[in-house]
Amino acid sequence: MQKTNLFVAANNAKLFEYINIGQLNGNTLSVLQAENRTLDFHVHEKSDELFYVLEGQFVLEFNKSAVTLAAGDLIIVPKGTRHRPVVTTRVKCLLMDMNGTLNAENTGGTYAIT
Amino acid sequence: MQKTNLFVAANNAKLFEYINIGQLNGNTLSVLQAENRTLDFHVHEKSDELFYVLEGQFVLEFNKSAVTLAAGDLIIVPKGTRHRPVVTTRVKCLLMDMNGTLNAENTGGTYAIT
Repeated sequence: MQKTNLFVAANNAKLFEYINIGQLNGNTLSVLQAENRTLDFHVHEKSDELFYVLEGQFVLEFNKSAVTLAAGDLIIVPKGTRHRPVVTTRVKCLLMDMNGTLNAENTGGTYAIT
Repeated sequence: MQKTNLFVAANNAKLFEYINIGQLNGNTLSVLQAENRTLDFHVHEKSDELFYVLEGQFVLEFNKSAVTLAAGDLIIVPKGTRHRPVVTTRVKCLLMDMNGTLNAENTGGTYAIT
């Protein structure tokens, strides 16, 4: 049985590279480093989306509100919720979505199976 | 949209109390503090199980192997895999299972919806 240290996995990721670290009941876990990037607003119609910040911080914007997420913070964006991440300084985080949710269109063109 | 700081939530949990901090696509996320406890070997037939260590460490035993998990380590135990956690010193962790997986029988009698 394999364990993964999320901090090590995120540290080893290149900027904007989604590292697939496993699956749970049909959901994919990825770690990511991002910096100085604002994605377009988008909706995942079929999947809730989990963000967990390992290091740094970013802002998650919704239609009429925004939440700043810092190290140790976790949020679950319900499916159907319009949102966009706004990243200024370097952030390292864990994402979790139903398999097949992430693609080039909703990740700023950088999503690839790794 | 509500965020949860996992460290704060775990710190606020009583020993062996499972704090439900959200759901993702039919899976329940819980934080927990445990200490000095070995569960019976058990199998989750329908659900993979995620363990993520926030603070401290514990050992996850399988039929013929064991893995020590420390802060930042994540492991996903595939459904159908016989396992048991062996906890000596205080550990704070995140768990994730399909809704309805955890019950008194597979948690040392301390599971309750909180």
